[in-house]
Amino acid sequence: MDEFSLIRHYFSRLTPAAADVALGIGDDCALLNVAPGHQLAVTTDTLVGGRHFPLQTKAGDVGWKSLAVNLSDLAAMGAQARWVTLALTLPDADQEWLQAFSSGFHALLQASQVALVGGDTTRGPLSITVTAMGVVPVGKAVRRSGARVGDLVCVTGTLGDAALALRLLDAPDLPPSLRERLDRPQPRLAAGLALREFAHAAIDLSDGLAGDLPHVLEASGVGAVVEAQLLPQSYEFARHASTGERLQLQAQGGDDYELCVCLPPDCLELAQSRLEVPLTVIGRIVDAPGLRFVDANGANIPLESHGYRHFQ
Amino acid sequence: MDEFSLIRHYFSRLTPAAADVALGIGDDCALLNVAPGHQLAVTTDTLVGGRHFPLQTKAGDVGWKSLAVNLSDLAAMGAQARWVTLALTLPDADQEWLQAFSSGFHALLQASQVALVGGDTTRGPLSITVTAMGVVPVGKAVRRSGARVGDLVCVTGTLGDAALALRLLDAPDLPPSLRERLDRPQPRLAAGLALREFAHAAIDLSDGLAGDLPHVLEASGVGAVVEAQLLPQSYEFARHASTGERLQLQAQGGDDYELCVCLPPDCLELAQSRLEVPLTVIGRIVDAPGLRFVDANGANIPLESHGYRHFQ
Repeated sequence: MDEFSLIRHYFSRLTPAAADVALGIGDDCALLNVAPGHQLAVTTDTLVGGRHFPLQTKAGDVGWKSLAVNLSDLAAMGAQARWVTLALTLPDADQEWLQAFSSGFHALLQASQVALVGGDTTRGPLSITVTAMGVVPVGKAVRRSGARVGDLVCVTGTLGDAALALRLLDAPDLPPSLRERLDRPQPRLAAGLALREFAHAAIDLSDGLAGDLPHVLEASGVGAVVEAQLLPQSYEFARHASTGERLQLQAQGGDDYELCVCLPPDCLELAQSRLEVPLTVIGRIVDAPGLRFVDANGANIPLESHGYRHFQ
Repeated sequence: MDEFSLIRHYFSRLTPAAADVALGIGDDCALLNVAPGHQLAVTTDTLVGGRHFPLQTKAGDVGWKSLAVNLSDLAAMGAQARWVTLALTLPDADQEWLQAFSSGFHALLQASQVALVGGDTTRGPLSITVTAMGVVPVGKAVRRSGARVGDLVCVTGTLGDAALALRLLDAPDLPPSLRERLDRPQPRLAAGLALREFAHAAIDLSDGLAGDLPHVLEASGVGAVVEAQLLPQSYEFARHASTGERLQLQAQGGDDYELCVCLPPDCLELAQSRLEVPLTVIGRIVDAPGLRFVDANGANIPLESHGYRHFQ
């Protein structure tokens, strides 16, 4: 049973149909009616050492990334990131590690204009849980469920860099820019705020396009066709990834932390002009359910499996 | 270095003086200006298996308690508990354990009228992090910093039951009512809401009175004298605790999850009449700094050390 089934099975019944819960478990964030006109967007993610990051990862990068993956969920909803709490479990009170961790965490707090407002520190195997909170005007949050047939499927930035970095982790010639994409992903907060004016649906890419986009398709009751050669590549990715592994790294590698959004075609240009990151069209929403990857001739490209899951 | 110093040293600088953070790290909850007139109270706590609860604890009790300790922080601030997120790390996807855990968690959700709105499930050593959110009108939250000389120091319920249960854990004649106090503490949410009308300061008792009350005294710049024989005892506690261990269990045992509040004397009767749990006067706020325990004649009773801390 994978983690999604686990959560759904045991915990979905715990989300009541309460008037103050506009959206419960099952999207990038919950949406809570905190005051008239204002919704609170909340998300939580745990990083376990050796599972979500290699144990040799620098403490500063662990600090940055544990915050980044949560802010990325707020970005996907179009929420303004405001506050986070940090629950830190450590095997020992290693001063040097703590200093570096907090520096990395702090660097992204500052870059994102977000405040750390609460925490808990306990002894145990290395694990970091961050809960991130943002605000969004009522009706403005971008959910997974709004994609419509004819929408363009677009992604911010480039895909596959982090997955390639992970594969080349011990290679002496791993380009720093790829390593940076693995260790210090940039949550697309500004893009999320801009895109909420246009997007019908959005999700952040943590498990890989092939693992995450289907959540949008299922929630929206639609399908998608994605053209493999349209997936945006960085210069270093194009230089270091072999032709045979490109699609697998870009669609199934995970750790991209880019946004995947469904846009009405007539909004594309305006949306692109409002973003500081590239926004690339990679496919289209269609009626037939499921996600198909196709080549330039429209022929299906089969994928091995869909995405990264913790309990398999 | 203990957990409090850890958090202060590495993370307090990460809490900026932002206009939307009314209260950052260092109280039972953070207070966030989420919308005009409304503050969001947020707290997070991690429970690690074998550290915060015995590994043989029933899964249902672990579920209950992981929620209870967080709701207790909201109660101490006088916030109306509304939403929680759950980050669950499990060594394996044990269906029976998950079923029982979620039942215990759910039972307290229902009893407290709180909604689970988000979560994350990962594989790793058993650890549970809950983040609890509540709302409180601006100006109504009860902080640690408001105690004044002359205030009565009061506690809800009885003290020492959980600590005695932990000491007698393997005893065949451990009374169920004591065991219940250890495994299923009752967060004093209704008492917290009622007491916010009267209390100058409050804290919830997780580490024991001798560990927690000093946080109020330091934040308020005052001291307190507590009369040991006034500490409220349950019938089973009085029957099973030896005279020599009573004060230690009641003041230093921890896991009470009762509220300790500082009240102006003229509010006592009205406050008591509004609560469904007993509210007992145990001492008084004084000018001289520090916490003194005294006997009926006013003579000092020395305590060995102060409270339970994770990193010692």
